[in-house]
Amino acid sequence: MTESRPAHGKAISIEEYRELLPNMRSVTESNEVASVLTADDYFKVVNKPDTRPAFWKFADVRATLDRLAEEPLREAERRFCTTVNADTGELVGATPFIFIGWQLIHPGEEVPPHRHNSVAIYHILEGSGYTAVQEAGSTWTKYHWEKGDTLACPAWAYHAHYAEGDADTLMYVVQDMPMMAVSRTLFWEEPLGQENIRHMVTGTSPSWSVTRTKDDVDA
Amino acid sequence: MTESRPAHGKAISIEEYRELLPNMRSVTESNEVASVLTADDYFKVVNKPDTRPAFWKFADVRATLDRLAEEPLREAERRFCTTVNADTGELVGATPFIFIGWQLIHPGEEVPPHRHNSVAIYHILEGSGYTAVQEAGSTWTKYHWEKGDTLACPAWAYHAHYAEGDADTLMYVVQDMPMMAVSRTLFWEEPLGQENIRHMVTGTSPSWSVTRTKDDVDA
Amino acid sequence: MTESRPAHGKAISIEEYRELLPNMRSVTESNEVASVLTADDYFKVVNKPDTRPAFWKFADVRATLDRLAEEPLREAERRFCTTVNADTGELVGATPFIFIGWQLIHPGEEVPPHRHNSVAIYHILEGSGYTAVQEAGSTWTKYHWEKGDTLACPAWAYHAHYAEGDADTLMYVVQDMPMMAVSRTLFWEEPLGQENIRHMVTGTSPSWSVTRTKDDVDA
Amino acid sequence: MTESRPAHGKAISIEEYRELLPNMRSVTESNEVASVLTADDYFKVVNKPDTRPAFWKFADVRATLDRLAEEPLREAERRFCTTVNADTGELVGATPFIFIGWQLIHPGEEVPPHRHNSVAIYHILEGSGYTAVQEAGSTWTKYHWEKGDTLACPAWAYHAHYAEGDADTLMYVVQDMPMMAVSRTLFWEEPLGQENIRHMVTGTSPSWSVTRTKDDVDA
Repeated sequence: MTESRPAHGKAISIEEYRELLPNMRSVTESNEVASVLTADDYFKVVNKPDTRPAFWKFADVRATLDRLAEEPLREAERRFCTTVNADTGELVGATPFIFIGWQLIHPGEEVPPHRHNSVAIYHILEGSGYTAVQEAGSTWTKYHWEKGDTLACPAWAYHAHYAEGDADTLMYVVQDMPMMAVSRTLFWEEPLGQENIRHMVTGTSPSWSVTRTKDDVDA
Repeated sequence: MTESRPAHGKAISIEEYRELLPNMRSVTESNEVASVLTADDYFKVVNKPDTRPAFWKFADVRATLDRLAEEPLREAERRFCTTVNADTGELVGATPFIFIGWQLIHPGEEVPPHRHNSVAIYHILEGSGYTAVQEAGSTWTKYHWEKGDTLACPAWAYHAHYAEGDADTLMYVVQDMPMMAVSRTLFWEEPLGQENIRHMVTGTSPSWSVTRTKDDVDA
Repeated sequence: MTESRPAHGKAISIEEYRELLPNMRSVTESNEVASVLTADDYFKVVNKPDTRPAFWKFADVRATLDRLAEEPLREAERRFCTTVNADTGELVGATPFIFIGWQLIHPGEEVPPHRHNSVAIYHILEGSGYTAVQEAGSTWTKYHWEKGDTLACPAWAYHAHYAEGDADTLMYVVQDMPMMAVSRTLFWEEPLGQENIRHMVTGTSPSWSVTRTKDDVDA
Repeated sequence: MTESRPAHGKAISIEEYRELLPNMRSVTESNEVASVLTADDYFKVVNKPDTRPAFWKFADVRATLDRLAEEPLREAERRFCTTVNADTGELVGATPFIFIGWQLIHPGEEVPPHRHNSVAIYHILEGSGYTAVQEAGSTWTKYHWEKGDTLACPAWAYHAHYAEGDADTLMYVVQDMPMMAVSRTLFWEEPLGQENIRHMVTGTSPSWSVTRTKDDVDA
């Protein structure tokens, strides 16, 4: 599980594939990751300790948001934090499969268009504005929200958020990202229009990998 | 849930998006799919009747495979059948979340390279040959199998199968396709190299949609 | 998928099992739910139309809650409604796998203790009070919440809610119930202490089945 | 994530609950497992390295089975091994969400009745016999299998296996156990008739916990 293994790459052509085929490495034995466990050994490791309840007072979330509010909204990134139950371990969720995010948007700001195949449910806690969503791959719609409204954005639908008015917008965001990430089925496109910069599993975009710049990706 | 709604489309550029933004339709009321159910109404519909056990005698699977064996192996399609428990309803699985496939390959045939973000586990029931798999987006390896071997292909890894020897190859294939399809998170790339021909949710490739030709897709 | 098939029953003893064994029906052919689909037929049905975005204005949710607020809080049932995207079909979720609930509790009321193996995340939109949760099968804790707080309740942990103060409590509730229900893995114990009254798949409790009384269950 | 936290316990009565309620510990601050991560910190940890393909030659599986074949079939346990891709980490699966098991049964042996809410798909590689399954909580059926047959056993249905004839039975078993275990939604009842001995999350049965005897559980 080293971090140095490469991310899934770009699509290749059938011609490129035909060139690769005769020169591939051949494996005729069980390979290095193929283990065989007896029942006794398996039940010891598949067995997960229970997670304890997790309780977040809003003041602690607000403190983190206040800190983020001082920072610029980086190009392809959101000003948000997430509340994680430490007992979920590798899954890093509020529960094993569910992500809870708190997204702050200053009036006049845009959270740029992007998409992912985790779903996203936005509940508006404070503020007003709209979200532009591409519907099933064709037409786009602006959903105008205010406090109390909820918008469910389907998997892989482009979306962007726009805060309006005088006060900050605060969204309570629900996703199934932990389930998607741990099953290695997660896709991410951001910034929009760079389809090959897809952050499945290990990302290659500035926003997702957070340690890379767009120049790194373009290189 | 009409079938006529379009599939998720190609990636768009930020410039295209900027042109679309001022002209989008605005929605300020709950929309047509947004329903609100009371607890009483909800529990009646979320409640699923249990699935009965499903039992497939091999003779019935073999009869379908024998029929498929007479047909040509179409360009971007496999010669396989799947055993489905009718009680899984919309999920169309052997169990609600798991797909079981039976794949027949004549000696000398190639199941062309493709990828999907459902995982695939291949158990060799009969025959011998190899599977070429792209590992984590970089190097390719040929795994040489014979009866009794199992190969687990990760989500979104390119793979292709090659039957060798004198006898047919028969693979027992396990996927989590029903879970991926019903959650609308499934991606498919086939034929290889046509990254924008992606069959997420409703497919646009000849193989996946089965009712379309490559010309339809290219058009 | 008839509704008349029975729910999973009570545990049986090994002695009862030994009596049943010699008299069981024998099946030697593929059974009635075991179908075999070719690739062509399968891809037509596993293919799911995309879900459209769903947008709920709070006024519509509030109107349903206002109606429920007039009703008594029934013994083993909650005063809540759920926002469902009609495009999720059989899954009946805000998204295919995620449930969003809106729970109203009048000051002084108790939502009685119960448990289920769907997780529950409670975000407090209005009001104050506490939730009693059993931690990992042993000690109980009262989590005292007010507006803005979030509590993540693990799968199968007992929990009960208590509204305090002068104003109604309104909770925004996130669960993975649609995923659990459609995969037939959902368990429910309510009212507490009636372990055999377990609503897996098709429920047998007054609250879950909504069409049964406790007397029906006890009979 | 210490191993010492207790498993989910037995059902309690409403009277027991009423006694506990006034004496529970009160929490008014964010608790010890409640963390808040910024986007930057979150994307670094939710990001999972890809899993490599895993390839098991049958000879390696057979070697483990041969070893198990010498041992007695313990009371509430199966003589099986599982093929695990080491890259799946905490999930301990052939793929992140799917378990593959190889179950060996000598002629005349019984794998005793039990149930779990992971599904199980049995493909018969060698041998003949039958599986007794309780259908949807009521009637029981014996499914008589031989080489090539497949039986899909629903979640939480009781089942037991019986090998007949002169040769060993070998089953290829598919389950969604890794997904169920990591999401802490897994239930297990074994031996049958001891409903409170339920191995959810951390088990309390001799078979599941593998380190406990039935006397430990009864104590």
